[in-house]
Amino acid sequence: MGLVVQKYGGSSVADAEGIKRVAKRIVEAKKNGHQVVVVVSAMGDTTDELIDLANEVTPVATGREFDMLLTAGERISMALLAMAIKTLGHEAQSFTGSQAGVITDSVHNKARIIDVTPGRIRAAVEAGNIAIVAGFQGVSQDSKDITTLGRGGSDTTAVALAAALEAEVCEIYTDVDGVFTADPRVVKKARKIDWISSGEMLELASSGSKVLLHRCVEYARRYNIPIHVRSSFSGLTGTWVSNEPRGDEPMEQALISGVAHDTSEAKVTIVGVPDKPGEAAKIFRSVADAEINIDMVVQNVSAASTGLTDISFTLPETDGKRAIEALNRQQADIGFASLRYDDRIAKISLVGAGMKTNPGVTATFFEALSNAGVNIELISTSEIRISVVTRQDDVNEAVRAVHTAFGLDSDSEEAVVYGGTGR
Amino acid sequence: MGLVVQKYGGSSVADAEGIKRVAKRIVEAKKNGHQVVVVVSAMGDTTDELIDLANEVTPVATGREFDMLLTAGERISMALLAMAIKTLGHEAQSFTGSQAGVITDSVHNKARIIDVTPGRIRAAVEAGNIAIVAGFQGVSQDSKDITTLGRGGSDTTAVALAAALEAEVCEIYTDVDGVFTADPRVVKKARKIDWISSGEMLELASSGSKVLLHRCVEYARRYNIPIHVRSSFSGLTGTWVSNEPRGDEPMEQALISGVAHDTSEAKVTIVGVPDKPGEAAKIFRSVADAEINIDMVVQNVSAASTGLTDISFTLPETDGKRAIEALNRQQADIGFASLRYDDRIAKISLVGAGMKTNPGVTATFFEALSNAGVNIELISTSEIRISVVTRQDDVNEAVRAVHTAFGLDSDSEEAVVYGGTGR
Repeated sequence: MGLVVQKYGGSSVADAEGIKRVAKRIVEAKKNGHQVVVVVSAMGDTTDELIDLANEVTPVATGREFDMLLTAGERISMALLAMAIKTLGHEAQSFTGSQAGVITDSVHNKARIIDVTPGRIRAAVEAGNIAIVAGFQGVSQDSKDITTLGRGGSDTTAVALAAALEAEVCEIYTDVDGVFTADPRVVKKARKIDWISSGEMLELASSGSKVLLHRCVEYARRYNIPIHVRSSFSGLTGTWVSNEPRGDEPMEQALISGVAHDTSEAKVTIVGVPDKPGEAAKIFRSVADAEINIDMVVQNVSAASTGLTDISFTLPETDGKRAIEALNRQQADIGFASLRYDDRIAKISLVGAGMKTNPGVTATFFEALSNAGVNIELISTSEIRISVVTRQDDVNEAVRAVHTAFGLDSDSEEAVVYGGTGR
Repeated sequence: MGLVVQKYGGSSVADAEGIKRVAKRIVEAKKNGHQVVVVVSAMGDTTDELIDLANEVTPVATGREFDMLLTAGERISMALLAMAIKTLGHEAQSFTGSQAGVITDSVHNKARIIDVTPGRIRAAVEAGNIAIVAGFQGVSQDSKDITTLGRGGSDTTAVALAAALEAEVCEIYTDVDGVFTADPRVVKKARKIDWISSGEMLELASSGSKVLLHRCVEYARRYNIPIHVRSSFSGLTGTWVSNEPRGDEPMEQALISGVAHDTSEAKVTIVGVPDKPGEAAKIFRSVADAEINIDMVVQNVSAASTGLTDISFTLPETDGKRAIEALNRQQADIGFASLRYDDRIAKISLVGAGMKTNPGVTATFFEALSNAGVNIELISTSEIRISVVTRQDDVNEAVRAVHTAFGLDSDSEEAVVYGGTGR
């Protein structure tokens, strides 16, 4: 039995009862013969409460001191968790990100992990203790200041520690049973996925699936760490995410892994752009300078008569205002006619490693949308993903239609073997 | 202008308003040309709330993890304070005890400071920044684990940093105006003391005065650091505590500095102890083995007829039960007749460096008590202190009577010059 890293999110340790329940689960893994390293987030609403406090003393809480403040949250949960484990008769020690050797760059509030030197963690587990590590935090290499890793930071801490400690598996405990073929709140018949490749999981994560964040999956893929996403409440087997199928997976890969949707984006269309080299570069440079990440980009062929073309892109709705301002400032330089902004869109994505060898997938996808009366506004594809932009009001119906069309519904006797519906 | 260390207690930073008020005061000191290092406690009730959480997950919260938990409290207050200072346009950086170089032994929950290596603090203030340091916490020299300093820890942090940084003064900000000649809640006419020697302050602290703890004054005396105790609310000059009088103090030292009282002790009387060598040693060894600190010890001459004597001592009421149990277990070995336990006592102490050269002080003290109808049960003295034990019900009247007898009342035209009342 090797070393496992377990990560528990804030909802799993929201109160004393939750902490005691998690402590029992950790002790079980230890009793099963594993060396156990646990990464824990701040309790329930702690982080929000700390942010509220910060907003009471300063208009814009940011930087070094904001990190110092927020890291108090995991300090509380990890110490309580260690106490709860000791109360069950097992030795546990808690470690801050700094003590655990999580070395980052100096970008406060969204630091990147540079290195992990978990000497103290290794010593603790080799002495037979359970090590509890604060998620979401590290220490900057240059200034030795405390940093936080930003969104999804605790998952990333867990995967990074798992990589540095050469763990067998990184278990991400959450409040759902795993990764589903679609959002179960939208698709009642969504099925839990038993195994999914890291590549597909990355596509799902960037397409709106919220169970695992892109960043954490990317890290796991790079260091070849299997992730097991599972519920801290149910104890059921969840979803395995790994680069290669594990021994007990079926030989044939599923055609389609799942359908993801995202209603948090907006669409910008730049109308009447001169169709000549350098125009697109100017547009996306001005957006990039405003530190806005864009998602889909679509440009159609220009109308030969005018020599003008339209360029559309999607971006987080929260960045919409800044993007429009940045583009308007450059209007004369770029030379476009006008801007259109639309935040009532949704993105629906079909992800599956099997689709690259099955040319009918796109057709089936579009047919399903068409049969449901859903209009397609933008299309973009990768090797294992097709995404379309539709009206936000249509999104739930569209997702359900696509889920059914690809035989993902759970009341199917078995997953539909591709071939009957399209090609 | 040199470096000042300012310490703010939990009541001064109980909420966002308090933090902003303290930030203004700190910035003022900075504007006056000082280098400023601030030591801050956890906000208001934070520590109690953390203790409550701990009690929900474990029956006895203690040790390493309890320290990890509690130190989250100062982390929150210091980060918020740094943010509030930045909002006022000044640079501030917060540091944990560990980052500030507060090195301790490994006794969790009541660690002692071994060394202070404030390299980062010095660098911060020399760069023109205000340094905010978490009180009450350090890092153990051996294990590099986070420790807490126990009761009065933040004051001790402040004095230790002041010593290591060779500060001009250590300002202890609190919710009272300074050290008074008696507890103002009991003696309406108590006067604020402008200056008191460290030696007298030590006696007051061990006699029930709660403004400064013994430990912090002891540290300041050893390293010759002047303390200025003052209110974070009023901004008035408070009480200076130092080894030697400061330049502007009157040449003649006051006869009596103040009257302290303490109702937190209990009295144990061991009746019928054989009056022979080794008996007292056996008694106090058994109490010491139970890790109980005793205060006054009194033994009268034995009655010649019986060869038996009685020994009384006082101790913290909270340790009473354990002391009685320890003594009872040793009854056969020690060979006493019986035990009496009394927790309805009070200790009243008169402190003043002038008393050692003024033999009438004791007489005046006892006359004042006698005139007030207060019976004396035990007496113990040091060079600059006389303490008596009385009934707890008499304590307020006794303190007032003594305060008046020594001319300490604030409506006196001037402090009574000793000589008229006793000798």
